[in-house]
Amino acid sequence: MSYAIGLDYGTNSCRSLLVDLENGEELGSVVFPYPSGELGILTDAADPHVARQNPQDYLDGMVTIVNGAIAQAKEKRADFDPSQIIGIGIDTTGSTLIPVNEAGTPLALTPEFSVNLNAHVWLWKDHTAHEEAGRITEQAAQDRPQYLAKCGGTYSSEWWWSKIWRCKNIDPAVFKAAYSWVEHCDWLPAVLTGNDKPEDVVRGICAAGHKAMFCEEWGGLPDKEFLASLDPLLAELRDRLYERAHTADVKAGELTCEWAEKLGIPAGTAVAVGAFDCHMGAVGLGVKEGTLAKILGTSTCDITVYPIDKDLADIPGVCGIVNGSVLPGCYGIEAGQSAVGDIFLWFVNHLVPDSYGATQDEKFINMERELAGGKPGDTGLLALDWNNGNRTILTDVRLSGLILGQTLHTKAHEIYKALIEATAFGALTIIKRMEEYGVPVNEVINTGGLAVKNATLMQIYADIIGKPLKVAASDQTCALGAAIFGATSSGKISIVEAQEKCCRMRDVVYEPIPENQKVYEELYQLYRTLHDGFGTAEWSGTLDHIMKDLIDIRQKQRA
Amino acid sequence: MSYAIGLDYGTNSCRSLLVDLENGEELGSVVFPYPSGELGILTDAADPHVARQNPQDYLDGMVTIVNGAIAQAKEKRADFDPSQIIGIGIDTTGSTLIPVNEAGTPLALTPEFSVNLNAHVWLWKDHTAHEEAGRITEQAAQDRPQYLAKCGGTYSSEWWWSKIWRCKNIDPAVFKAAYSWVEHCDWLPAVLTGNDKPEDVVRGICAAGHKAMFCEEWGGLPDKEFLASLDPLLAELRDRLYERAHTADVKAGELTCEWAEKLGIPAGTAVAVGAFDCHMGAVGLGVKEGTLAKILGTSTCDITVYPIDKDLADIPGVCGIVNGSVLPGCYGIEAGQSAVGDIFLWFVNHLVPDSYGATQDEKFINMERELAGGKPGDTGLLALDWNNGNRTILTDVRLSGLILGQTLHTKAHEIYKALIEATAFGALTIIKRMEEYGVPVNEVINTGGLAVKNATLMQIYADIIGKPLKVAASDQTCALGAAIFGATSSGKISIVEAQEKCCRMRDVVYEPIPENQKVYEELYQLYRTLHDGFGTAEWSGTLDHIMKDLIDIRQKQRA
Repeated sequence: MSYAIGLDYGTNSCRSLLVDLENGEELGSVVFPYPSGELGILTDAADPHVARQNPQDYLDGMVTIVNGAIAQAKEKRADFDPSQIIGIGIDTTGSTLIPVNEAGTPLALTPEFSVNLNAHVWLWKDHTAHEEAGRITEQAAQDRPQYLAKCGGTYSSEWWWSKIWRCKNIDPAVFKAAYSWVEHCDWLPAVLTGNDKPEDVVRGICAAGHKAMFCEEWGGLPDKEFLASLDPLLAELRDRLYERAHTADVKAGELTCEWAEKLGIPAGTAVAVGAFDCHMGAVGLGVKEGTLAKILGTSTCDITVYPIDKDLADIPGVCGIVNGSVLPGCYGIEAGQSAVGDIFLWFVNHLVPDSYGATQDEKFINMERELAGGKPGDTGLLALDWNNGNRTILTDVRLSGLILGQTLHTKAHEIYKALIEATAFGALTIIKRMEEYGVPVNEVINTGGLAVKNATLMQIYADIIGKPLKVAASDQTCALGAAIFGATSSGKISIVEAQEKCCRMRDVVYEPIPENQKVYEELYQLYRTLHDGFGTAEWSGTLDHIMKDLIDIRQKQRA
Repeated sequence: MSYAIGLDYGTNSCRSLLVDLENGEELGSVVFPYPSGELGILTDAADPHVARQNPQDYLDGMVTIVNGAIAQAKEKRADFDPSQIIGIGIDTTGSTLIPVNEAGTPLALTPEFSVNLNAHVWLWKDHTAHEEAGRITEQAAQDRPQYLAKCGGTYSSEWWWSKIWRCKNIDPAVFKAAYSWVEHCDWLPAVLTGNDKPEDVVRGICAAGHKAMFCEEWGGLPDKEFLASLDPLLAELRDRLYERAHTADVKAGELTCEWAEKLGIPAGTAVAVGAFDCHMGAVGLGVKEGTLAKILGTSTCDITVYPIDKDLADIPGVCGIVNGSVLPGCYGIEAGQSAVGDIFLWFVNHLVPDSYGATQDEKFINMERELAGGKPGDTGLLALDWNNGNRTILTDVRLSGLILGQTLHTKAHEIYKALIEATAFGALTIIKRMEEYGVPVNEVINTGGLAVKNATLMQIYADIIGKPLKVAASDQTCALGAAIFGATSSGKISIVEAQEKCCRMRDVVYEPIPENQKVYEELYQLYRTLHDGFGTAEWSGTLDHIMKDLIDIRQKQRA
C-alpha cells in the first residue's frame, strides 16, 4: 500500500487530501479556514484593490489539515500507517508573494513588520499594482516583445514584478528589508524541507514561467538591462533571486525532523516542488494532450498541454504558455475567465428578489427550476461576461458587463440564464482560440462547485461548447493533483501511472444536444459581434440586426 | 359658478376630475382601477405582445368615478349643484380599438365573443401587429409616401390599421363580426350621448389623424385603392367607417337620460369630442408654441404645437403631426417614449431585492435615498431605454433594453439611476429632433407621477435636457385638459380663457446644474453611439472606447 498527501492552499482556506495511490480513494481531507482578516484576506478600507494574507495562517493550517487527514485515514483503515505516505505535494494560489528577510523569514512574521500590510503576503487578487503592470507591458512591448508573447500580450497587475515594484514604490522600507521574494507555492515546500533560506529555495517553473517572465529561451528571469529600464532596484534584486526553476515532479527536498514531528509523517518523506492550484488541478483532472481541464469556480482556469517536441506558435490572448508548468515535456497552456461564479454571485446577491427564496442557495435552486424545459434563445437576452474584465482572449481589465434584449417582462431567472450563456460563450471563445493555433481540444474535464452542483449550467455549457463535458469524481482535484506530484517526486511512480489510477470521472457526461447547438451557434455569432465590437479596436460592422435577431430567435424558440 | 368634468381613461385605471372653471380648483376626483386581467390588462402567456382590455371596465368605471367626484364636490361645497357642470370631456389611451357589431355593441360584450381576447379592446400597447405595420409602411413608402410623412416615416404596430388588419389575419371570425371599429376615445362620448351606432359615432381628429392616417389633404382616411393593395377587406371596411373627424372643442352630443341618471348630471349636458390622454393633457399643462408638454408616466408623451399658418417640414421619426389634434388652428406634434415609468416598474418588480424594502414604494424611496449625493457618471453604467421598443425617433418596436458597465460591485440602485438617465437621454433625443426641424422648445412643463414624486429623476432630467423643468400644479392634467374641452364644447368659454384660469404651476422649478450638464454631455455622446449603433442601419463607428470612457468618467466622478 502506498499513499500520497496533497495540500491545496486556496484564497480563503487550505485543505488536505490523503489518497490511496492504487485507486485514488480519498481517505482523509480536512479544511482550515484562514483565521486572519475577512475570510483570510487582509483588506484596506481606503483601497478596494488591496488583498493581503498572513503567512502564519499557512503554517497553522498545515499542522491542522495534515494531522486531520491522517487521523481520518486511521479511522477508515485500521492498518493505515503514515510511513506509507510516499510524498507530499503542495499547490497554492499565485502570484501570491511573500517578502522574506535574509534568513528566509517572512517579514510579516518579524516584530518590525508584523503590523505592516505591505510586509504581508501579496495575494493573487491584490490589484494595487495596475500602474506598474501597465508600465511593464509598455516597456516590454517596446524592448522585449518576446516576454509578452508568452503571456498573452499583457503583463498583469496580479503578477510577480508588478507587485514587487509596487511595494518598492509605495513602501521602500519593506522593499529594502525584503532580501528576496518567494512565491507562496515555493515557500511551503522550502519550509517543510528546511530549505527556506532564500538561496536554497527550490523554485517551481509554474510560478516562475507564468508570473515572473522566466523562460529558458532568454536565460531565465528577464535580463538586468530590461529590469533596470523599469527600476534599477529591480535589476539589483534579480541577483538575489534564482537562475533555475523546476517542474513539480521534482523533489524539492525531504521532510525535516521538526516538521515530521508536527505532521506525524516520517522525516525524509519526499516533498515535491510547488505549483499553482489550477496547474496541479489540471493534472488531478487527468489533463493530457487534447484534453482541456476546466476549473469552474468564482473565476475559471482553463488548462491544457501540448508536447514540446511539436511546433507551437504563441497564442495571442492566452494567459501563459510555459514549458513544464503542468506536465514535464509539455507546454502548459493556461487561459481563463476573470469571473464566472462571481458573476452569478453578484447577480444573486444584488439583483434577485426574495420571491425566488430567502437564501442565496434557494434563489439559485429556484431560478434553475424556472429554467427547466426552456430552450436556447427563449429569453431573447444576450450578455457579455466581463463584469470583472476579460482575462482571455482580450486580456483587458478595463471592460465591463453588458446585458441586452430586456423587455418589460424579463425575469431574473432569464437574466441568470443569459449570464450562464455569456460565460459559456466566453469559454467557447477560449477553446476556439486554442484550436485556431493548432492546440486540439477533444474533450473537456470539469471540476469546481459549478460543475458538480449545477446541471443546468453544465448542459448549457455542453450545448454551447459543442463537446462532451465530463466531471471529475473528486471534489478536490487541485489537492489530488498535488498528491500525484507528491507521489511522483518520490521517484516511485510516474505521473501517467498515478493519473491512470487516481483520476476518475463521474458517471454523468453532458452531451451537446444537436438542436440546441444549432441555435447557440447563431447566438454565438451575435455574442462574438458584441465581444469583438466592445472589446477590440479593429472591429467594424453593424449592430442594428442584433436586437432583431434575438427577437426572431426568441419567437421561434417560444413557438 | 360653472364647472366641468374631465374623465381620463389610462392604461390601468380611469379617473375623474371635477374642476371649478373660475380658478382650476379641483373639487372632486376618483380613481377606478380596471378589475379585469392583471392591472386591467388581459395578457397571453404565449405572446408578450398581447395587451387587451375589457370594455365593461370602462363603463363600470364611468359610473364610479363621476358619482364619486360629484359626491366629493358636494362635500366640499354645500352649494355645489351638478347642473352647474357645463360639459364633460373624455380622454383615453390610443390607438385603443374596440371592434363593435352593427348595433355598436363591443363584440366582447356579446355572449358569442365574451371569452375571445381578439374580440376585446386592443390596447395601445398591444404590439402583436408588427408584421402588419411593416407591410403598411412598405406599401405606403412605395405608393403613398405622403401618408408616412405625417407619422414619422413608419406606421406603428400600435395603430389603427395595423391592429385591424392583424385581427383579420389571426381571427377572421372576429373581423367578420366587427361591423366597425371605434377608438376608445370616440366610443365613450358616443355611449354617453346615445350616438354609439357605428354610423353615428362622432370621430375625433386626434385619433383619426395620429393613428388612422386621416388627413384632409388626401380626403380623410387612406383611399380604397391603397387599402385594397393591403387587403381587399380593409378597403371594404372603409365604407363603414367615417368621412369626417373633429377637434375636441366640438360637442359630440348631449348626455342621454339613461346616462344622466347613472351619473347624476342633467341630461343634455355637453359632451366633447374625445381625444387622446396626452393631447388633452398637453392642453391641461398649458401647451402653446415654444412649450413642450411632457407627460411622464409609464410611457411618455411629448407634445407641442406649431401654428398652421407657418411653414413646418415633416419631422422624421416624430409620431405624428396633425392639424387640430391638440389645439384648433395649430399642428399638434406628438412624440414619445414607449416606456419610462414602465421600465422602472419592471426593474423594481423583477430585479430589486427586498433589502431595499418590502414594498415597491419603499424600494423606490430607498433607492433614491442611496442615490442622494451621487454624481453623473459615478455608477459607470449606461443603458438604453428600449425595453418596450423606441417610439421616437427610431419608431421601431423591434428593439430591446441594454445595460452596460456592470462590475461585480454594481448595486440595484445604480442600475436604477442608469435607467433614469437612459430615459432622460431618450427625452433629449426627441427635443433635439424637434429643434433640428425648426420647432422651438423654450420650456418644458411636466406632469405625471414621476414629475411630481421623483425629485431625483427630475434633477437628472434637468441636467440632461439642459432646460428648466416646470411641474404642473395639477396631478391630473389629462383629466384637467379633458375638463377644459368639456367646458369648451358647451360654447360658453374659450380654450385660451379656460387654460389661463385653470393651468397652474408648482413652485419648484428644476434648473440644470452646469457641472452635471457637462458630464452628461459626454455621457450623451456614448448613449448616442449605442442609440445609433443598435438602432439604425446607417451607423458605422467603433465601440471599444465606450466601456473605457465609462470607467474613466466613473473614476473622475468618484475621486
